[in-house]
Amino acid sequence: MASMSTVFPKSTSFLSQPLTKPHKSDSITTSISFPSRNRSLRTLRVRAGLIEPDGGKLVDLVVSEPRRREKKHEAADLPKVRLTVIDLQWMHVLSEGWASPLRGFMRESEFLQTLHFNLLNLDDGSVVNMSVPIVLAIDDQQKALIGESKRVSLVDSDDNPIAILNDIEIYKHPKEERIARTWGTTAPGLPYVEEAITNAGDWLIGGDLEVLEPVKYNDGLDRFRLSPFELHKELEKRGADAVFAFQLRNPVHNGHALLMTDTRRRLLEMGYKNPILLLHPLGGFTKADDVPLSWRMKQHEKVLEDGVLDPETTVVSIFPSPMLYAGPTEVQWHAKARINAGANFYIVGRDPAGMGHPVEKRDLYDADHGKKVLSMAPGLERLNILPFRVAAYDKTQGKMAFFDPSRAQDFLFISGTKMRALAKNRENPPDGFMCPGGWKVLVDYYDSLTVTGNTKLPEKIPV
Amino acid sequence: MASMSTVFPKSTSFLSQPLTKPHKSDSITTSISFPSRNRSLRTLRVRAGLIEPDGGKLVDLVVSEPRRREKKHEAADLPKVRLTVIDLQWMHVLSEGWASPLRGFMRESEFLQTLHFNLLNLDDGSVVNMSVPIVLAIDDQQKALIGESKRVSLVDSDDNPIAILNDIEIYKHPKEERIARTWGTTAPGLPYVEEAITNAGDWLIGGDLEVLEPVKYNDGLDRFRLSPFELHKELEKRGADAVFAFQLRNPVHNGHALLMTDTRRRLLEMGYKNPILLLHPLGGFTKADDVPLSWRMKQHEKVLEDGVLDPETTVVSIFPSPMLYAGPTEVQWHAKARINAGANFYIVGRDPAGMGHPVEKRDLYDADHGKKVLSMAPGLERLNILPFRVAAYDKTQGKMAFFDPSRAQDFLFISGTKMRALAKNRENPPDGFMCPGGWKVLVDYYDSLTVTGNTKLPEKIPV
Repeated sequence: MASMSTVFPKSTSFLSQPLTKPHKSDSITTSISFPSRNRSLRTLRVRAGLIEPDGGKLVDLVVSEPRRREKKHEAADLPKVRLTVIDLQWMHVLSEGWASPLRGFMRESEFLQTLHFNLLNLDDGSVVNMSVPIVLAIDDQQKALIGESKRVSLVDSDDNPIAILNDIEIYKHPKEERIARTWGTTAPGLPYVEEAITNAGDWLIGGDLEVLEPVKYNDGLDRFRLSPFELHKELEKRGADAVFAFQLRNPVHNGHALLMTDTRRRLLEMGYKNPILLLHPLGGFTKADDVPLSWRMKQHEKVLEDGVLDPETTVVSIFPSPMLYAGPTEVQWHAKARINAGANFYIVGRDPAGMGHPVEKRDLYDADHGKKVLSMAPGLERLNILPFRVAAYDKTQGKMAFFDPSRAQDFLFISGTKMRALAKNRENPPDGFMCPGGWKVLVDYYDSLTVTGNTKLPEKIPV
Repeated sequence: MASMSTVFPKSTSFLSQPLTKPHKSDSITTSISFPSRNRSLRTLRVRAGLIEPDGGKLVDLVVSEPRRREKKHEAADLPKVRLTVIDLQWMHVLSEGWASPLRGFMRESEFLQTLHFNLLNLDDGSVVNMSVPIVLAIDDQQKALIGESKRVSLVDSDDNPIAILNDIEIYKHPKEERIARTWGTTAPGLPYVEEAITNAGDWLIGGDLEVLEPVKYNDGLDRFRLSPFELHKELEKRGADAVFAFQLRNPVHNGHALLMTDTRRRLLEMGYKNPILLLHPLGGFTKADDVPLSWRMKQHEKVLEDGVLDPETTVVSIFPSPMLYAGPTEVQWHAKARINAGANFYIVGRDPAGMGHPVEKRDLYDADHGKKVLSMAPGLERLNILPFRVAAYDKTQGKMAFFDPSRAQDFLFISGTKMRALAKNRENPPDGFMCPGGWKVLVDYYDSLTVTGNTKLPEKIPV
């Protein structure tokens, strides 16, 4: 199964490359060091050490305090569109500028550029990457209710207005084509598709968002939900001169940690004075057999407490996007959003955002396509892509280490699936695979499923 | 059914637009006149009146006469890959530079850029459009036979070597993903998919082509198969200062003719002195119920003989590409290849390269997406896209005319499907729909099916 796990059969790592300026022709395998288009980075390092957001400035779609009352009043009189949980997550993403320069749910022109080219053309002739449709579906009845109105209010499950969508455009929702072009398959069983597309309406509504209040979830984790603007402030406060982002949706084990600490070491060797790790777990929709966000955050905290990662040089924050499991298409979104959060280095592993094929017995995506596509993607030239080397459990050292093919027999590969199965069965992984505090969180999570009788998916986890 | 036919329910035509320089923001609807990025066109008009090929110069992969003997000798000793008819058509396309700057069947990097972004990055940092994979599939057995060889020879159905593929790369053929991302569906029944992908091998082989002889079909139509280089020469000989291309795979009727002559008139009004029409029927694989190339060419000749189009300002030539019926993805290929043939204006109709959904009762693509996607496509900024206005049979005038919505009841829409059905049943269309000589060719074609007992598809044509 695909994840940012320890299974990396091929060693294509920047860590084994000489630290020279990458050439265009081999940018996939030697993409560390300075970007091939140096201009942007230089400009930014002069400014604050942080990379410039897509489109030049961070989009902020939350109505300013003094105008909220007035806007709420306006919203009350508009036709209403009720948001699903995933719609709300995308609204959150848009409102804070993760998708800068996008200013709302996509109109058809943006939707088509995303589907066909994974990019958006800007007025100045430049392009930004945009690989996943951020769209809002409505059904025939909602469309009829909207009628000729040019604005709608977006409401939560209790019909409370939470945003206004302005200058709207309603266009057809070509579901099959959207799925085929985003996932490269239309096989039944894609988690995001089943949750958010199959039963969605046949129309899409795009427009410019005005969000009435900052989005909060009141789940005890809001303190981890730093917006791109807040991340910029935090990273500047820490004096970061390089920011390397690590996207994850799984518990952190020592293989991840090795990679992250080693990346920092290499960035220091390259001459950066203060590289900061943005440990950035995804916080939106995930499939049912992934470990839920609250447990993952507990686990990440333990990893920092246990000293596996250095809190001084690590920022832990939640990335509010839903997870699509759309492999090479989605990894571009994961990377692009981190540019907007201030990251100029992005770590990419085997089969990023991948999963098993929902019908056939194989991975849905070629494990190497993610990093290849990321390195070719229009609009991501400013970002340094760091493909990472195989880490595995070295039985001779009793710890996670970079895989050495000359003594392959000494290494043990523990996949995300296997890790979850061990924890579920209350078995221990080999010493040194994960810090004990972190492992205990995982075991407690699976215990909690048994206690509450919530056994919805354990049967899907083979040992 | 989709085709360059007379059915255009919505009027979005450059012909109704003021002839002003298009603005970026409304380039879809006002894309005639000079391109928004003028530089290339200016450069070219100074040079020869013709647009520069993608990548700066036309690729020519045919081995020069003096070296053919030596190359044939080399080819004889290499592992062999036998080409299908469609493979051969693509080899033809590549050999003459229609896909410039591509120099052979795609390697994985080109394949991935095509699938995900519909473009190729060039070494100088520029991009060219490339929306359809031009790949060569081999099976496990062929892969094993090739072994460690860095070169293979491509052979015809009699095992005669016709090309060498150099510096080869063999990579996985992700059929489902290729189909989904190219067609936006994986529904069974896509003509090209069934013909060329479903039963093809699980590997793709890319490399640099050396084609041993110019490709000839010896079917009496080779004289119409002008290469891009030959077209450049012909267009220069005629002193063209603007070239407008019309892709088609159907018989020409007077609605098409009206559009083409009117386009020329408007180009003259814009100040061009000698606009030349490139009437460019597609010559490769088409689905079984399309009219075969030989009959279409007879029909096109009649249209010129009957004076419906002016032979002085029209070049009729065959475009050797196979037809994918991949709608908005394929229309980019149709346009891009015509840049390489010297065209700087491209006429696009309703639902270009579209067809009915193979399973559902609807068109596979939104009829407007083709022209929208074409206007947004990376690498096609130099080409002037001419979306065309609705033409239909005007009963009051007894001829094809631009549709006037204020007197809709006066117009009759005759689709490609209906046209074929009338011809098959030896019924006549209304006077003025098509020149009599051209119509007779169509009737003769359907008669020939009955005479030879070849009735493979007439039952698919409802009246």
